[in-house]
Amino acid sequence: MPRPFISFLTDFGPDGPAPICRGVMLTIAPDAQIVDIGHHVRKYAIRDGALLLWSAVPYLPVGVHVGVVDPGVGTDRRPIAILTARGDVLVGPDNGLLRPATERLGGIREARVLENRDLWLPVTTSTFHGRDIFSPVAAHLAMGTPFETVGPPIDPAELVPMTMPTATVRNGGLDTTIAFIDDFGNARLAGWPDDLAAAIGALEPGRALVVELGHGTSNGATSNGGPPTVVRTTWQRTFGTVAIGEPLLYQDSSGTISFSDNQGNIAARLGLVVDQPARIRPA
Amino acid sequence: MPRPFISFLTDFGPDGPAPICRGVMLTIAPDAQIVDIGHHVRKYAIRDGALLLWSAVPYLPVGVHVGVVDPGVGTDRRPIAILTARGDVLVGPDNGLLRPATERLGGIREARVLENRDLWLPVTTSTFHGRDIFSPVAAHLAMGTPFETVGPPIDPAELVPMTMPTATVRNGGLDTTIAFIDDFGNARLAGWPDDLAAAIGALEPGRALVVELGHGTSNGATSNGGPPTVVRTTWQRTFGTVAIGEPLLYQDSSGTISFSDNQGNIAARLGLVVDQPARIRPA
Amino acid sequence: MPRPFISFLTDFGPDGPAPICRGVMLTIAPDAQIVDIGHHVRKYAIRDGALLLWSAVPYLPVGVHVGVVDPGVGTDRRPIAILTARGDVLVGPDNGLLRPATERLGGIREARVLENRDLWLPVTTSTFHGRDIFSPVAAHLAMGTPFETVGPPIDPAELVPMTMPTATVRNGGLDTTIAFIDDFGNARLAGWPDDLAAAIGALEPGRALVVELGHGTSNGATSNGGPPTVVRTTWQRTFGTVAIGEPLLYQDSSGTISFSDNQGNIAARLGLVVDQPARIRPA
Repeated sequence: MPRPFISFLTDFGPDGPAPICRGVMLTIAPDAQIVDIGHHVRKYAIRDGALLLWSAVPYLPVGVHVGVVDPGVGTDRRPIAILTARGDVLVGPDNGLLRPATERLGGIREARVLENRDLWLPVTTSTFHGRDIFSPVAAHLAMGTPFETVGPPIDPAELVPMTMPTATVRNGGLDTTIAFIDDFGNARLAGWPDDLAAAIGALEPGRALVVELGHGTSNGATSNGGPPTVVRTTWQRTFGTVAIGEPLLYQDSSGTISFSDNQGNIAARLGLVVDQPARIRPA
Repeated sequence: MPRPFISFLTDFGPDGPAPICRGVMLTIAPDAQIVDIGHHVRKYAIRDGALLLWSAVPYLPVGVHVGVVDPGVGTDRRPIAILTARGDVLVGPDNGLLRPATERLGGIREARVLENRDLWLPVTTSTFHGRDIFSPVAAHLAMGTPFETVGPPIDPAELVPMTMPTATVRNGGLDTTIAFIDDFGNARLAGWPDDLAAAIGALEPGRALVVELGHGTSNGATSNGGPPTVVRTTWQRTFGTVAIGEPLLYQDSSGTISFSDNQGNIAARLGLVVDQPARIRPA
Repeated sequence: MPRPFISFLTDFGPDGPAPICRGVMLTIAPDAQIVDIGHHVRKYAIRDGALLLWSAVPYLPVGVHVGVVDPGVGTDRRPIAILTARGDVLVGPDNGLLRPATERLGGIREARVLENRDLWLPVTTSTFHGRDIFSPVAAHLAMGTPFETVGPPIDPAELVPMTMPTATVRNGGLDTTIAFIDDFGNARLAGWPDDLAAAIGALEPGRALVVELGHGTSNGATSNGGPPTVVRTTWQRTFGTVAIGEPLLYQDSSGTISFSDNQGNIAARLGLVVDQPARIRPA
């Protein structure tokens, strides 16, 4: 019998709350393998957390995946669990965080609202459902408690959706946006290499391209701050095919388009922010 | 037979020393479940570490809890182990770090000084007792080595105490201080909601309050830098009951009083520091 | 039968990629004990990673150690595995990262190039060999797959070496450099206490010394920025033997010479950087 597997993603930071949740899980499921998908998600950035979960779940064992980026904790947002076609269960708030990951796990088989307090800690608070509700429910599920017992079903169509940024082929280029910035400063762009190829033709390694960066702000609005920043770059297969410090566009390890500096931090160098508009066109 | 459980808290940062300690523990106790309570404690901040341990231990399985915030390593401060009424053992330096946690575990049953070198690494240094003494002793205890073998008993009254900040009801308000700042910038205040209610009456959600912030410095002293900063706020049940960016006072998940911005970082916004004086009064 | 042991070091940062690798390993080796040696290595700093691995492996159980600081991912740098005399296997890129650790594990018994794609993920990318090649190979090895199956042997003399900074006795002092700066700001210097003693005589606790700090830059070059910074200090056994904030030189827990401030951060205070030249002489 394999050990119960639980993955865990939050915006809690590394100390204190996340380990406390781990303690709650291990009190119920002492033999669980728990993997921290990350606890440094930008605070309150539900979509960042959703993207990280989406990236990770195909590479995780079948198990229970707990996500807590939950600015609405203690309000009337629902605590939920989602059973997927692959057999995984996702546990967390109904705010869109868990939705993209379900697509990588074969889709939603069934969703339920967490209402069975027998699976919660005996005492709960209004500000820490990660500890009081999500962790104990996840650990009970990992130990074999039937999914049906967590609470009443909810129509998956009623779950809060997550809108991901998209890319548009326009006028011989691809209009996209910065969807995520990782720890290296790599900027993941909305859309896929096939979208870019549809806009500009075959993506041969070394092909000269231009990225026009609009004026993003941290809340996604675009200021009218003058002309876009124009960056000359190339399409490449990997980082080391350009000189150190030079930018490149490439298909990243999630299959999407990323914009990076070889051995540098392009986000820091150019002041990139999430939701900043970008346009890719031939040089 | 359950797997041995060890929790681990330090100010070492994430890389290198803490994982090396984990390696030492797993060499002795290969099947242990080890949970990192946190390794980003403010450097040398014994009280911060003590507060994190105090917050965590009620939610951890019974086991061995290692704490190393140890500016006195290699001096004559004692290395100790404390057996608690719940059955846990705390291991670390005798500098107050472990004391508050014992209160959450039923109190001290017995304390001993680590003197049995058979339980240490064969070679020890003067600057890394986490690796050389605390980790191997903890792992041996987790594997069932009797508590009595670690070294001679010490009267618990002789252990170095930890003084936590307190709150005082005065003149229709509560004089308190900032006891801890977490990764969200939430400021945990000294005292309990009952203390505040004793000072100002019932804490109804939405009740208007004022927080007067004195001039704290990083070492706890108060400068005479002019009048306090006055912040108008409200008592709330949870974050999402006020607008984004607005401050609130509430009973946090440890039961104490905290001061936060909804989806913001009040410590960064107001420049709050640990040990800064604060007074709460009706608006 | 002990649980398979895997250690893991990267410059990936804490979220996302490193946990994804962990998921890959646990899919193949569900019962593995995986220890993160650190994921905050300075980006692309192969030597920093090599030093951390070198510091850690003597304290780890025998097992598989995966290191990924890999600016050349997807280029023609080789992916390798090294079997050591102690029985450990090191897995990672052939860029010098793994070499110093082999010296702590009895030396290299055999090295092989990872070419057996049956041990890789079915789909591989050009930018994330940590996930696609190193993690699955490491997990298969941890589960007992024979070392010989990973790919063809390579003469250890052909592996990319790692050059560590050295110290030179000269004119009554020791010419050294800052080899590594840790999370406390402690500066580990090239060379050993015996080298320093050879230069200046017996290292008695309390002996007055001078450290002359040259003008380092982040890429190791030395500018001609005027005279060196001269710091008066003492040789000590541990931190707490000097006043808070005072500097000291001492034999650190890896046996090398370190330069620190007691309860301070000497690297931040003096602006120290890796590869900065330093000279130690009697006061």
